[in-house]
Amino acid sequence: MESLKKAILEKGKVLPGNVLKVGAFLNNQLDVKILGEMADEIFAYFKDKNVTKIATIEASGIALAILVAERFGVNAVFAKKSKTANVDGDFYMSECFSYTHKVNNNIIIGKEYLSSSDRVLVVDDFLAHGQAVYALKNIVEQAGATLVGVTIAIEKGFQGAGDKMRSEGIDLYSLAIIDSMDDCKVVFR
Amino acid sequence: MESLKKAILEKGKVLPGNVLKVGAFLNNQLDVKILGEMADEIFAYFKDKNVTKIATIEASGIALAILVAERFGVNAVFAKKSKTANVDGDFYMSECFSYTHKVNNNIIIGKEYLSSSDRVLVVDDFLAHGQAVYALKNIVEQAGATLVGVTIAIEKGFQGAGDKMRSEGIDLYSLAIIDSMDDCKVVFR
Repeated sequence: MESLKKAILEKGKVLPGNVLKVGAFLNNQLDVKILGEMADEIFAYFKDKNVTKIATIEASGIALAILVAERFGVNAVFAKKSKTANVDGDFYMSECFSYTHKVNNNIIIGKEYLSSSDRVLVVDDFLAHGQAVYALKNIVEQAGATLVGVTIAIEKGFQGAGDKMRSEGIDLYSLAIIDSMDDCKVVFR
Repeated sequence: MESLKKAILEKGKVLPGNVLKVGAFLNNQLDVKILGEMADEIFAYFKDKNVTKIATIEASGIALAILVAERFGVNAVFAKKSKTANVDGDFYMSECFSYTHKVNNNIIIGKEYLSSSDRVLVVDDFLAHGQAVYALKNIVEQAGATLVGVTIAIEKGFQGAGDKMRSEGIDLYSLAIIDSMDDCKVVFR
């Protein structure tokens, strides 16, 4: 998606260690024009797939997820990060390793918000090692629901998780795929 | 707002200790129809106030904030909770006591995302003791920006922070105000 690539180049900041800061439009400030265009693009790609629910993880996936949900006219649900174990059985829970913070988080979604008849589109801002997507996929499976596809704003293609998902048959649609960030220079696929 | 009050009564759960669970539509599952109507209502109230930015705090304020931002055609910004102090000066920071978790959080917003020319509308899902709103107000003041008003989905009127803000001259617009939850029964103002 050209306008997103343009925003990454013009408003993003590349730091050493393959860190891409996009707080100017995606995950601190929320640029309503770019996010709206992204939601339109995602809707156009998945609109014939009978999506019944959008799923994401707090916090930075929520803005894009609700705009996508608005276009589909379906509800969204966001997984919460939880330090405690699931003791009362009211939640689906999955483990999710954070490479950023080097800790295992549990993510949880109330069981009443996902059912076996749901057709779920997973939405997130970044795809790097794929931990968040796999944790959400696991929860979709626990609910007996159908994973229609996964859509990501910015995929770090060089970290391989996206291609692994595609080889596993997941319908993954990333709006921008970065193939390298060597010398702090962004190269798109 | 009648449709929100109806959703609170029909989909909310009141627990002992004045706890209101609205995960079914507001802060775990996101009901796109109710949230959209809320955003329309907020836009109608503040539309002539030259709002240039919507501000909220992660995570549960983000969905409503971006929908409101979409209606105004302006960007949103969400404060992040931070355990660490602001060492590099790139962020506005304010202290925010959490009555739920009994800890002081720092909330931060990148300085580049708020300027002295901004006219800011603060959006959040709940108003109880008002800590989050006052922390955001403090950041707006640090930036030299103007606080146009504050809008809240559900105000716990019986905890007094809303009336305190009104007496201080803050233009506070709450879509539903709960005056009591005694015996697990919701009474609206």
